[in-house]
Amino acid sequence: MRSLQEKIINEGQVISDTILKVDSFLNHQIDPEFVMAMGRELANRYAGEEVTKVLTVEASGIALALTTGLALKTPVVFAKKKKAATQDSQTYSTKIFSFTRQEAVDIYVNKKLIHARDRVLIIDDFLAHGEALRGLADIVEQAGATLVGVGIAIEKVFQNGGQALRKKGIRIESLAPITSLSGGRVSFV
Amino acid sequence: MRSLQEKIINEGQVISDTILKVDSFLNHQIDPEFVMAMGRELANRYAGEEVTKVLTVEASGIALALTTGLALKTPVVFAKKKKAATQDSQTYSTKIFSFTRQEAVDIYVNKKLIHARDRVLIIDDFLAHGEALRGLADIVEQAGATLVGVGIAIEKVFQNGGQALRKKGIRIESLAPITSLSGGRVSFV
Repeated sequence: MRSLQEKIINEGQVISDTILKVDSFLNHQIDPEFVMAMGRELANRYAGEEVTKVLTVEASGIALALTTGLALKTPVVFAKKKKAATQDSQTYSTKIFSFTRQEAVDIYVNKKLIHARDRVLIIDDFLAHGEALRGLADIVEQAGATLVGVGIAIEKVFQNGGQALRKKGIRIESLAPITSLSGGRVSFV
Repeated sequence: MRSLQEKIINEGQVISDTILKVDSFLNHQIDPEFVMAMGRELANRYAGEEVTKVLTVEASGIALALTTGLALKTPVVFAKKKKAATQDSQTYSTKIFSFTRQEAVDIYVNKKLIHARDRVLIIDDFLAHGEALRGLADIVEQAGATLVGVGIAIEKVFQNGGQALRKKGIRIESLAPITSLSGGRVSFV
């Protein structure tokens, strides 16, 4: 998505060879019209796939998931995070490792919110190591639902999370796939 | 907002005399069209106030803040939460107490994202004790910006957070003000 690549170049901050900040329009401040345009683009890419539910994880995935859900006219579910895994028969839950926070967290979704007949599109802002997406895909599987695919704003291709998920046969659409952040410069596929 | 009151009656779960769950359309699953309608309503109530920025706090305020920002055509900023208060010259931060989690958390906003000339509308999903709103208002004050008012989906009037904020002269618009959850029944103003 050309407009997203331009916005990353103009407003993104390359903090290190692995960290890109997009706090001005996606992760801390949100540009509503722009996130709406991204949601429409992801909805277009999955048009005809009969998505019945959009799934993301709090917090920074919510904005893009919401606009994608608006465009697809489907409900949006965001998995919640909690510290300790308590056994709970009412939720699907799984453990994911946060590289940003260097800790494992549990994410969970109430069983009432995903059904076996659902066709689920997973949305997130970033794809790096793929831990959050792996966890969300696990929840879709626990529910016996169909995973239609994944929609991502920014994929850090060099961190290989996408590769691992694609090998499992999961379709991934990234609006801005980045091959390198070396030398303070953003390189796109 | 009549449609919100109806949705609360039809889909809300009264867990106790103080706890109402609206996980089916606002706090866990989101009904995008409905949250868009709520955002439009809040934008209408603040029309003419020349709002330049919508401010909320992660995670469950993000959806309503985003749709309000879409309707007002303004950027949306969500304050982030963190565990420990580290001194940081780049952020405005304040401590709030979460009654849900029974712990104090720090919320912070990068100083680049709110300016003295901003006219800020604070948005959140719930108003109970008013801790989150008090913290967000504090951040607006630290930035030297103007607080135009507060927009809330559901106010639990009986928990008095709104009363304290109104006494300080802060305008609060609640789409569904609830006077009681006693006996498993939702009573509106």
